[in-house]
Amino acid sequence: MVGPINDDIGLHPISTSANALGRIKTVTHHEYFESYPTVKSWMKKHTNNPAQRFKNYFISYLPFLSWIYRYNLTWFWGDLIAGLTVGAIVIPQSMAYAGLAKLAPQFGLYSSFVGVVIYWFFATSKDISIGPVAVMSALTGSVVEAVHNDYPGYELHVIASALSLISGCIVFALGMFRLGFIVEFIPLPALAAFMTGSALSIAMGQIPTLMGKRFPKKEKLFFFFNTLRAVFIILLYILISWLINRHDPDHPRTAILGTVPRGFQNMGVPYIDSTLLSAFASYLPSTVIVLLIEHVAIAKSFGRINNYAIDPNQEMIAIGITNIFGPFFGAYPATGSFSRTAIKSKAGVRTPLAGVVSGVVIILGIYALPALFHWISQASLAAIIIHAVGDLIVGPTTLKNFWQVNPIEFFIFWAGVLVTLFSNIEYGIYVTVISSGVLLLFRIVKARGQFVGRVIVQQVKLFADDYVHLTTRNIYVPLDHSDGSNPTIIPISPGNGIFIYRLNESFLYPNANHYIELLVEQIFRETKPGKINPYDSLGEQPWNLKTSRHPKRDQQKDDSRPCLHALILDFTGVAHLDITGLQNLLDVRRQLDRYADKQVNWHFVGLSNPWLKRALVSVGFGSSHEGHTVFSVANIHDHIDGGENDNDVVLVPILDINRPLFHADLDEAYEAAITSLPVKDNAVIFNNNSV
Amino acid sequence: MVGPINDDIGLHPISTSANALGRIKTVTHHEYFESYPTVKSWMKKHTNNPAQRFKNYFISYLPFLSWIYRYNLTWFWGDLIAGLTVGAIVIPQSMAYAGLAKLAPQFGLYSSFVGVVIYWFFATSKDISIGPVAVMSALTGSVVEAVHNDYPGYELHVIASALSLISGCIVFALGMFRLGFIVEFIPLPALAAFMTGSALSIAMGQIPTLMGKRFPKKEKLFFFFNTLRAVFIILLYILISWLINRHDPDHPRTAILGTVPRGFQNMGVPYIDSTLLSAFASYLPSTVIVLLIEHVAIAKSFGRINNYAIDPNQEMIAIGITNIFGPFFGAYPATGSFSRTAIKSKAGVRTPLAGVVSGVVIILGIYALPALFHWISQASLAAIIIHAVGDLIVGPTTLKNFWQVNPIEFFIFWAGVLVTLFSNIEYGIYVTVISSGVLLLFRIVKARGQFVGRVIVQQVKLFADDYVHLTTRNIYVPLDHSDGSNPTIIPISPGNGIFIYRLNESFLYPNANHYIELLVEQIFRETKPGKINPYDSLGEQPWNLKTSRHPKRDQQKDDSRPCLHALILDFTGVAHLDITGLQNLLDVRRQLDRYADKQVNWHFVGLSNPWLKRALVSVGFGSSHEGHTVFSVANIHDHIDGGENDNDVVLVPILDINRPLFHADLDEAYEAAITSLPVKDNAVIFNNNSV
Repeated sequence: MVGPINDDIGLHPISTSANALGRIKTVTHHEYFESYPTVKSWMKKHTNNPAQRFKNYFISYLPFLSWIYRYNLTWFWGDLIAGLTVGAIVIPQSMAYAGLAKLAPQFGLYSSFVGVVIYWFFATSKDISIGPVAVMSALTGSVVEAVHNDYPGYELHVIASALSLISGCIVFALGMFRLGFIVEFIPLPALAAFMTGSALSIAMGQIPTLMGKRFPKKEKLFFFFNTLRAVFIILLYILISWLINRHDPDHPRTAILGTVPRGFQNMGVPYIDSTLLSAFASYLPSTVIVLLIEHVAIAKSFGRINNYAIDPNQEMIAIGITNIFGPFFGAYPATGSFSRTAIKSKAGVRTPLAGVVSGVVIILGIYALPALFHWISQASLAAIIIHAVGDLIVGPTTLKNFWQVNPIEFFIFWAGVLVTLFSNIEYGIYVTVISSGVLLLFRIVKARGQFVGRVIVQQVKLFADDYVHLTTRNIYVPLDHSDGSNPTIIPISPGNGIFIYRLNESFLYPNANHYIELLVEQIFRETKPGKINPYDSLGEQPWNLKTSRHPKRDQQKDDSRPCLHALILDFTGVAHLDITGLQNLLDVRRQLDRYADKQVNWHFVGLSNPWLKRALVSVGFGSSHEGHTVFSVANIHDHIDGGENDNDVVLVPILDINRPLFHADLDEAYEAAITSLPVKDNAVIFNNNSV
Repeated sequence: MVGPINDDIGLHPISTSANALGRIKTVTHHEYFESYPTVKSWMKKHTNNPAQRFKNYFISYLPFLSWIYRYNLTWFWGDLIAGLTVGAIVIPQSMAYAGLAKLAPQFGLYSSFVGVVIYWFFATSKDISIGPVAVMSALTGSVVEAVHNDYPGYELHVIASALSLISGCIVFALGMFRLGFIVEFIPLPALAAFMTGSALSIAMGQIPTLMGKRFPKKEKLFFFFNTLRAVFIILLYILISWLINRHDPDHPRTAILGTVPRGFQNMGVPYIDSTLLSAFASYLPSTVIVLLIEHVAIAKSFGRINNYAIDPNQEMIAIGITNIFGPFFGAYPATGSFSRTAIKSKAGVRTPLAGVVSGVVIILGIYALPALFHWISQASLAAIIIHAVGDLIVGPTTLKNFWQVNPIEFFIFWAGVLVTLFSNIEYGIYVTVISSGVLLLFRIVKARGQFVGRVIVQQVKLFADDYVHLTTRNIYVPLDHSDGSNPTIIPISPGNGIFIYRLNESFLYPNANHYIELLVEQIFRETKPGKINPYDSLGEQPWNLKTSRHPKRDQQKDDSRPCLHALILDFTGVAHLDITGLQNLLDVRRQLDRYADKQVNWHFVGLSNPWLKRALVSVGFGSSHEGHTVFSVANIHDHIDGGENDNDVVLVPILDINRPLFHADLDEAYEAAITSLPVKDNAVIFNNNSV
C-alpha cells in the first residue's frame, strides 16, 4: 500500500501540447507560468538577515526601554493611585492566600513584593498585577502538603520555594524558546471550568474558618463589600479583634493571625535537591499550566479592553523570572491575579511602573505593620478569600451562551467543574484539556464534503420604496441545503456525469480515508459503469454485489444514468494536503478511471497555496489531454485608466496556462467540464448553461 | 476573561425592523426565515428507529451471509487456485516467521491455519490473507524474549499465546465499539517508515543465518525468484539438504529445521495470569497498533484495486476473533500479510472462502509433511523471510514523491525508519505517530487568513482558431498573490475602510487568538481611529504608543487614511466555530468598535452550516441597524419551464431575510458594505464597482 503513489505518473501528461498554447495566443499574447515553491527558496526566505532577527529577538526582552524615556507627571499620578490601591489590597490578600498554601502569612507578603517589583521590567501589559493568587496558592498548598507528608524533613516553605524556582525555570524556558503558543491548547471552557471549579472548592474550604470557633457572625457582611472597602474594614476588625483579645494575647477569644515576623526573614539561596525535585516532579505540569493560563488569559483580556496587544512569550518570561527570583526572598509561586488586575485597571494605571509603588507599600507593610497584623482575625482573611474567588465563578448568562454556541463544550465545562470540585485541580485541567483535544481531532476526522449545484441569483438593491436589479450570477449551494439556504430553490446539478464536490476542511491523514468516500458512493449510485452489463452470469459477478442468485433477471434493462465524466473539487476550504490525503486522491482516481473505463478529468477550484499545487502536480493532477478550452483573463489596463479607452485592452491569464484543470472559480470549472463532454451530450444540456 | 462573552448582546439588534421587511416585499412576497438546529432535534434525528439500527448493527457482524447463497462453480475454481497457492506459500513462510517470534516452527503452522480458516466468516475483503507476518512475528519475538528473561517460568509459546489472546480482545472491542477510526491517526509516512524500518531490521537479522556456518553460498539466488517458485525451490532444497545430511541426521552439515511434531500438539485453553499480563502490558499498545495498521492498510489498498470497500470496524472484529481463537490451537499473534495478500489477489481469488482451501492445505502440511520439514535448511527459511520483507521497503520513486508532496513528512518518514532500525519497532511507531500529530496541531495553530480583493475576469472559450467571450464576473484573490495567481493583475481592494478577509481553516481554540490578529494589525495600519488626534500631550498618550517625547510634533498633520467602516469575513473554509473562537470574535468586535468609535458592520459570507449561524446569532452577529439593502433572490420558476415565460417570475430570497449581514457570496457582501457607506464616500468609489 506504499508503492502505488507513483502508479499513475505519466498517465496524465505533465504539460499541455504546444497546439493548445498556440490557441491561447488567439486571446492573449501574455503567458503566465506559475513557479512552485522549493524547500531551498523557503529556507532562504525564512533565514535571511539572521543578525537583525537575532537583535530584535534580544531587544524584545526588555520592553520597558520603549516607554521609560517618555515617563511624565500625568502618568506618575495614575500609577501612584493604582499602585497604592493595589498595595493596600495585596497585603491582606497575600497573607490570606499564604494560608491556602499552608504557609505562614509573611510568605504571602514576600511573594507579593517580588511579584510587583520585578514584573515591570518585562511587562507587555500595564494592567496585570503579579503575586500570590487563590488558585495557585491552593495548588501549592496541596503539593507542599503531599511532599511534606512523604518527606517530613523538608520545611513547608522550602518545598514551596523550590516549586516556584523549578516551575519558574520551565516557564522562562518556554518563553525564551517562543513556545507561548502551547497556551492556545487550553480552550476557554477548560479555563472557565478550572477557575469556577477551583473557586468553588477554595470557597467551600474556607467556610469552616469563616464559621469556626469563637467567631462573630456579623463578619458575613464582608460578602457584600467591595474589595477596596475591605482594607478599611480589615483595619476596623483589627481594632475590634485587638479590643477583644488584648488582655490575654496567648489565649485569644477569636482566632487571630498571631505573630508575623518583621522584615525579610527567609532571604537566601533557595534549597533544592534531587529528592525534592523527584518528589514534586509529577505536580510540575499542572503547576506550570496554572502559572501560565491564568496570567496569559488575564493579560490578553485586559489588553483587549484597554486596546493594546500583549506578547504571550514575553509574559511567560516575566512570570518565569518572577518565580525564579522570588524564592531568594522566600516567595512561593506567584502569577497574575484576576481580582487585583481588575482593580488596578479600574484605578487608572498608566504604565507597568505602578508595580514599584505597590512594592513600596508592601515594604512598608513588611517592616512597619507586623505588630498590627498580629490582631487580624482568621475569619476576616477567609472572607477576603471567598470574596476574591467569587469573581472567578462563571455566571448563568455565560453558561447559557456556552450552551447556545456549543452544547458539547458546555458538557466539557461541567465535567471540568465537577472533577475539579470532587477530585482536584490537576485532574480538572487534564479532563477538560484532553476532552477538548479529542473533540478537536474528532472534528478533523469527521470532515465531510458536500455536493453543490448552481443557483442563478439576481442581486437586488433596495431603495426607499423601489429596488434595482444589479447583476445576475451563479452561486453554488449544497444540493441538500445543509447550509440552511432556502429549500424551495433547487440547485442545478451539472448532470452528464459531472459532480461538484466542496471540501471545507484540510485534507489530512485523519480524514483522508473518509473525506471523499461519500463522493465515491454518490458516483456509484448516480452513474453507470463505463462497460455496460459487464456480468453475464453469476460467476462473473463479484462476490460483494448484493443481488439474488439470478443477476440477469435483476439487471436494469435500460440504465438511463450517465457515465462518469468529470469531477470538480472545490478546494477553497482545503488549506493543507498531506501524503496520506494525496495517496487517497490517487487511489480514488485509479478506482474511478477503472469504473468509468476512461480517464476522468479532475478539475480543481480554489487552490489557495502553491505548495498544494506542487503536491497535486507532482502526481499528474492539473493537466489534461484536451488542453485549455475555457479559461479566465483579466484586463490589466482596466485598473489603470478605469477601462475608459476600449482600445487599450491588455488581457492576461489569471492562472498558469499550463494547468487547464486548475480553475479560478466554480463557473470556469463548470464551463470547462461541460465543454469537454462529447458533442452529443453537450447539446443536450446547453440550456442550463445559457446565462 | 470568562464573563465578556455576553457583553455585547443587545448592542446589535436581534431582528431587522419591520420597515426593512416591508421594503423587501417590493421585491418578493416570499419570506424565508431559517430555523437554527437545537440539541433536541439533533438527538431526535440521531436516535430514531433504534430497533432497526440495532438489527443492522448485529447483522453487519457476519458479512458472509450476504454472498454465500450465491456461491457457484466459477467462484469455486478461482478460490481453489488462490487457496492452494496461498496454502503452499504459507507453510514455509509461517515456519520461517515462527523463528522470528522465537518459537518452534509448528507454532507458525498453527497460527496460519487459524488465520485462514476463521477469517472468512467475518471478512469484508476477499483478498486479504491472515496469518503470521514478518513484522508482527519480530515484535512478538521481542516481547516473548523480554518477558521470558524477567519470568523464566513461562514457556515462550505460552507468552506468545497470551499476548495474542489479550491483544485480540482489545482489537475485537475496538471493532465492536466502532472505534476503527483510530487507525486514521496513523498517517501513510508513519506506516511506510514502520514497514521499511522493520523490513530492513528483520532482513539484517537474517543475514547471519543466511550466511551462517555450514551454509552453501548459492542460496542467495533466492532473492531473484518470485514467491510462487519459492515453493518448488524449497522442495528442491529439501532434497539437497536431505541428500547432504541423511547419513548423519544428528550432526547435519547444514543448519536444518529439525523435528517438527505432527498434528496440533498445543491445543487447549491458553494460560494467562496477572503476572504475565502485567509483564507484557507495556507492549500491548504497539502490538495492537501493528495488528491493526498493517491489516487495515492492506485491506483498504486491495479493496481500491479490486473495486470494493472494506469496513475497518468489521475487519478489526475479524482480526480480534482470529487472535482470540488462535491461542486455543497454540497460535501466536497473526494479522493480514502483505506478500500473501498480493499473491492471493493475483491468483484470482473470488470470495473469502478461498481461506478454507488454504486451511485444508495447511492441515495436510501439519499432519502429512512434518517428516519432510525436518530437512528444510534454516538458510532457505532466512531467504524466504528476506524475500518477503523486501516488498515492504519503500522504493526511491515513492521517496522522491514524498519529498515533492511534503518535505516535512519526508523527514518524519526518515526519523521513523532510523528509530525503527536502531532502536525498535515500538519507538519507531511512536516517533512517527507523535511527530505527525504535532505537525497536524501545528498546522491548526498556525492557520492564517488572507486579505482578498476583487478581480474582474472575462471567461473565454477557445475554438480551433477563434474564441468567444462567455461572461465577465468578479473573482476574489489574495492581495499578496499568495495563491500563485498572476502577479501582474492587481486585485481591487474595496477601500473606504472596508476589508475582505478570507479564512481557510476552522476557527477553533488552538488558532482562535492568532487567526484574526493579522486582520486587526492591518486595520490599525490602514485606517485612522474614529476620534482624530486624540492625544494632545505626552501624558494623555498611552504607554505603549512608540513615539518620541514630543508626540505633537510627530503627529501626521493630514491623515488621509479612511476610518474603519466594515469587515467582510469569508467563512467558506470555516467548518467549525467553538466557544473560544467566538469569544475572540467578540473581543475583536469590541476592540474595533472602540477604535472606530462606531459600530462596525461584520458581514459574513459562506456560512456552511446552521450550527455556525446559531452560534454567531447568539451573540448578535448577522443583524444590522440598517436592515437589508442588498440581497439575492432566485427565480424558482426558472427551473420548471426553463424561464421561457417572462411573466411567470417567482422570486424567492436565498437566505434568511432577517439576517442582513449573512451573505450568499462575496459580491453581495461587497455591494452591501459599499451601500452602507455614508453618501459622500459612496460617490467616490462607485467607479470601482460599475461592472
